Amino acid sequence: MLIVQKFGGSSVANAERIRNVAGIIAESFLMGHDLVVVLSAQGDTTDELLDKAAEINPNPSKRELDMLLTTGEQQSIALMAMCLEGMGLPVVSLTGWQVGIRTDTVYGSARIRRIYTERLRRELDKKRIVLVAGFQGVNKFDDYTTLGRGGSDATAVALAAALHADRCQIFTDVEGVYTSDPRKVPEAKKLEEITYDEMLELASMGAQVLMNRSVQLAKRYGVELEVLSSLVRAPGTKVKEVSKNMEEMKITGIAKDEHVARVTVVKVADRPGSAFRVLNAVSKAGVDVDMIIQANGREETNDMSFVVAEGDAQRAYDALMERRSAIGFDHVSLDRDIAKVSVVGAGMMSSAGIASLVFEALNDEHINIQMINTSEIKISCVIDAPSADRAVSAIHRKFFES
Amino acid sequence: MLIVQKFGGSSVANAERIRNVAGIIAESFLMGHDLVVVLSAQGDTTDELLDKAAEINPNPSKRELDMLLTTGEQQSIALMAMCLEGMGLPVVSLTGWQVGIRTDTVYGSARIRRIYTERLRRELDKKRIVLVAGFQGVNKFDDYTTLGRGGSDATAVALAAALHADRCQIFTDVEGVYTSDPRKVPEAKKLEEITYDEMLELASMGAQVLMNRSVQLAKRYGVELEVLSSLVRAPGTKVKEVSKNMEEMKITGIAKDEHVARVTVVKVADRPGSAFRVLNAVSKAGVDVDMIIQANGREETNDMSFVVAEGDAQRAYDALMERRSAIGFDHVSLDRDIAKVSVVGAGMMSSAGIASLVFEALNDEHINIQMINTSEIKISCVIDAPSADRAVSAIHRKFFES
Repeated sequence: MLIVQKFGGSSVANAERIRNVAGIIAESFLMGHDLVVVLSAQGDTTDELLDKAAEINPNPSKRELDMLLTTGEQQSIALMAMCLEGMGLPVVSLTGWQVGIRTDTVYGSARIRRIYTERLRRELDKKRIVLVAGFQGVNKFDDYTTLGRGGSDATAVALAAALHADRCQIFTDVEGVYTSDPRKVPEAKKLEEITYDEMLELASMGAQVLMNRSVQLAKRYGVELEVLSSLVRAPGTKVKEVSKNMEEMKITGIAKDEHVARVTVVKVADRPGSAFRVLNAVSKAGVDVDMIIQANGREETNDMSFVVAEGDAQRAYDALMERRSAIGFDHVSLDRDIAKVSVVGAGMMSSAGIASLVFEALNDEHINIQMINTSEIKISCVIDAPSADRAVSAIHRKFFES
Repeated sequence: MLIVQKFGGSSVANAERIRNVAGIIAESFLMGHDLVVVLSAQGDTTDELLDKAAEINPNPSKRELDMLLTTGEQQSIALMAMCLEGMGLPVVSLTGWQVGIRTDTVYGSARIRRIYTERLRRELDKKRIVLVAGFQGVNKFDDYTTLGRGGSDATAVALAAALHADRCQIFTDVEGVYTSDPRKVPEAKKLEEITYDEMLELASMGAQVLMNRSVQLAKRYGVELEVLSSLVRAPGTKVKEVSKNMEEMKITGIAKDEHVARVTVVKVADRPGSAFRVLNAVSKAGVDVDMIIQANGREETNDMSFVVAEGDAQRAYDALMERRSAIGFDHVSLDRDIAKVSVVGAGMMSSAGIASLVFEALNDEHINIQMINTSEIKISCVIDAPSADRAVSAIHRKFFES
């Protein structure tokens, strides 16, 4: 079986952690698997390098930043190779260039364009464990690029796709994907399986296990992912197209996102295109919006609300106020003290009763729902931030603990 | 004018030093020169990386060590590029691979085989300052190699040769090449010019300014070197084929090497091939010898002495003792408490009187000469180590201070 494994920065932060991960790799290798292992930079390396850069130039070019940052992963693979060599295992480390990972030219957040697998195949044919520097590639100018946030996961998934690997294992510091955040909801259950779409909704809802990007990539190429712990030896959560739980389980997980703000545009002039002009102003400022609600009042003006990432709130506000007369509204109010609680589940597609169960759970707790948004596999509610943990627990009880 | 500049690790050890070097580079660039700048890893980076490696595997493969170590120079060029960007200068940093430096496959001490200059030429045509990671290249497997000791100097000289540069400036923490070690001999004079051959003799004698390897490379390709300080703005020493001082100055410099030991093989059997067998045993143990003296006694046995590097003395001893009966000798004695003092100068070729001046200087100080060796441009004397500094001063006075 050909397996691609990926270990994050905290998993290789020091010599002890490296030895631990080497043990996991060795175990898989000695079971007879062909192994390609993607590594991130050690623990704080990237931050240290960014500090060094900032000391010299607070605003360096992204090309040179990538030149600097790609050294972090290169050091990781070299050190891990030495560790595996010390265990008497055949191993070779390869940088993004050597692996043949070709990206576009967007320094700092490049996308993988193509992977030339000849070298990888050759090394695998020699029965070597192949260590690959994650997060990096080279562009058409033969310059180094980094893949941006979640880049090492993306490297692993892309390699799994290119090699038609049998499995892609993402090792993290959690044991898998849970029905809710186990640090907040002690009763949270680890999911055996989850669909790509469910994972995408959970990831965007703040479940920090996998970046959307990697899940999308896995979905597009049909790469079966497994999220599991590098510290605890236990089966993780499989992320795939169809989950066997789809019929039985109503919902897959509950997520909470407190880094959101509600923007309300008050008394939008009731004329054609107002809603478009509001959203256009915000989107031109580079702000993504979610959960748009237009409250049709009795007056000839309407209030319009939507949710943005907390960090974008001021930008959205400024963009709107700048075009206030052109759009036509009274004023804009911001509410940062909100949270978005979402329940996700492919089972929802056929269960209309899910929503009412969610509302019942919140009602039992006297939590007021400010906004609601539903999709085929998700129901999101905006509530006041202080109630968020209580809301997640209540919903969790309703669905998983009865 | 196309200039290749090289700055060592201590010259780029921290942000302040990087800014200082950036000033030197900027000055040359703004004078209208095309610039290729070779950098070493920052200060202690290489040692820190070696420590990290040792913690994981005390005996890692040289391939993976090179994978690890090449990141040091890559970080240097990225940081320097950021600094120059901050000054508004056009700059691009390139690793050994990107520059097209192709080496043999000897990891840890690779030799440069070829440099493909297309990318360099392209960047220079764009009027960019090109920063090059020293000490590294890639081999025919597309694997990273390091060039071993003095590797960054070798990178600079090889680039100067490949690009037919007008000048190759090696910036160090000394102001040039001196008639003797200025820390020991306050009267030491900075040389304006010196020939390759003189520099070679001085380098091998422990004047740590330039590794022999770079000087040999420069000599072979006729690259004119200039050794100068990155901290003091002053003309340095030019190293070239013919020095204009050749006729006037009797000797160029005086060097001292205390890291030597004398091996004496006592009572070597007086039969054909004995000397060969002694030297063969030592050379097969990988030990270089110097200053071989065979003292023909009145007996039918001879003593044979030679000088080796201090670190090789035990190996030479063991190798000889192992073949004691085959070679035929009584015993081997080692003397580590010696020093080799050498006077170097192309002028010697025509001045037979130099030797007698050296001997006179040592005689004045009552320093006993244990061994003597002369070449066309060098006279070396082995004396007891405690007299070494006094010997250097005495010779210096004799030649330079009258």
